[in-house]
Amino acid sequence: MKITVLTLFPELIRTIAASSITGRALADGRFALETVQIRDFAGNRYGKVDDSLYGGGTGLLMQCEPVWQAWLSAKEQMPADARSLVLSPKGRVLDQSLVDELAAAPGLILICGHYEGIDERVLEAIGAEAVSIGDYVLTGGELGAAVLIDAVSRQLPGVLPDESAWREESHMDGRLECRQYTKPELWRGRSVPEVLRSGHHARIAEWRLLDGLAETLEYRPDLFAGLDLDEDCLCRLWEHIGERRRET
Amino acid sequence: MKITVLTLFPELIRTIAASSITGRALADGRFALETVQIRDFAGNRYGKVDDSLYGGGTGLLMQCEPVWQAWLSAKEQMPADARSLVLSPKGRVLDQSLVDELAAAPGLILICGHYEGIDERVLEAIGAEAVSIGDYVLTGGELGAAVLIDAVSRQLPGVLPDESAWREESHMDGRLECRQYTKPELWRGRSVPEVLRSGHHARIAEWRLLDGLAETLEYRPDLFAGLDLDEDCLCRLWEHIGERRRET
Repeated sequence: MKITVLTLFPELIRTIAASSITGRALADGRFALETVQIRDFAGNRYGKVDDSLYGGGTGLLMQCEPVWQAWLSAKEQMPADARSLVLSPKGRVLDQSLVDELAAAPGLILICGHYEGIDERVLEAIGAEAVSIGDYVLTGGELGAAVLIDAVSRQLPGVLPDESAWREESHMDGRLECRQYTKPELWRGRSVPEVLRSGHHARIAEWRLLDGLAETLEYRPDLFAGLDLDEDCLCRLWEHIGERRRET
Repeated sequence: MKITVLTLFPELIRTIAASSITGRALADGRFALETVQIRDFAGNRYGKVDDSLYGGGTGLLMQCEPVWQAWLSAKEQMPADARSLVLSPKGRVLDQSLVDELAAAPGLILICGHYEGIDERVLEAIGAEAVSIGDYVLTGGELGAAVLIDAVSRQLPGVLPDESAWREESHMDGRLECRQYTKPELWRGRSVPEVLRSGHHARIAEWRLLDGLAETLEYRPDLFAGLDLDEDCLCRLWEHIGERRRET
């Protein structure tokens, strides 16, 4: 898997990607990351790549030609069926199923707008798919690209030490993870639920399943509504929720 | 407004925040940013702040006491009604209305988990509100904190040059922005819509309104469904959509 980011801030992308698990995955060759400085394709000696909006208004828009040339140069180095994405508040909202889909692509070209965005025509010409990391406004596409790279790279083979470490994460199965505890057993009057200290694997697995469902119902009823649970599971869940209430 | 980030990767937060508009806002004193290295509160000479999960499983969880001590030290330096947030996939999903709400707080303490997350008990003790930047799994809370800082700082007085520059952004009004164009007028056979070149302010304003609504309907029918549009506006919108189709 190769990811190429077209941006005015290549250093920022490289610094973020060099950290933590992404950085290790890059060092281990689990995926390749390149950045392309769009300004290198400005076509003028000032490196100017933006201009004012047609129709008036404040702010500057990135022009077609530099983005187009940067994209052509990236495209050349990519597998033919690589996907081109633009980070945009208009895009399909990123979720774990889109992450999985993108992690299966042979290559990704991520286009980061800045200022007011990018001239519509070049995005049409590229056929760029718009992706949004959420319903809020950010200064540029760079943080969105960094989020996408982090989420996607975690899903690549060999990046996480053990498949079980992420199989149980929130959103992996349309539901949230159970509450988690580590040492000490008693911290400032708060103790770890007894079952987790029992060593009884089947009871622990049951508690974790039900506690994750209870968390989903409490914090994300919208996700809970999409789960397909049978009557037996629901009965055990109500019991578990009763126990949670007695805890506090 | 003061934002303090509790993290194992303070450098990463500072590097991201120093870029672009956030960086200028910090330099201009529009808000203050501090980072607290949770490891400084490890309470052991190895700087160890995590341990294995109760109940078994791979991965490490951040322990209560270092997070608690880091939080106490940050809290001391904060206005009494500052809000404490933990970046977590379980949290309330960030959207522009939550961004606005957070931008009105006198201070924010952002707690970034890493590895498998943070022991539940310390989050309970702090009364931390969980916030998620989207329904996907990331390696740590740092990118979420960076996204939140970017989105919130844009809303602070004086950070953006002109209020009108952001009033028309996507998601500011529950809908998407219109398509945007800059020079040249004709690029590789694609031209800028005639009305935007007309200089006729009222027609331009009307086109932008309708084109933003058309974008919302096309890309985010879920947002469109939440808009309250009168019959006259809908009629003009259908006409505009007809024109868009004829363009292509």
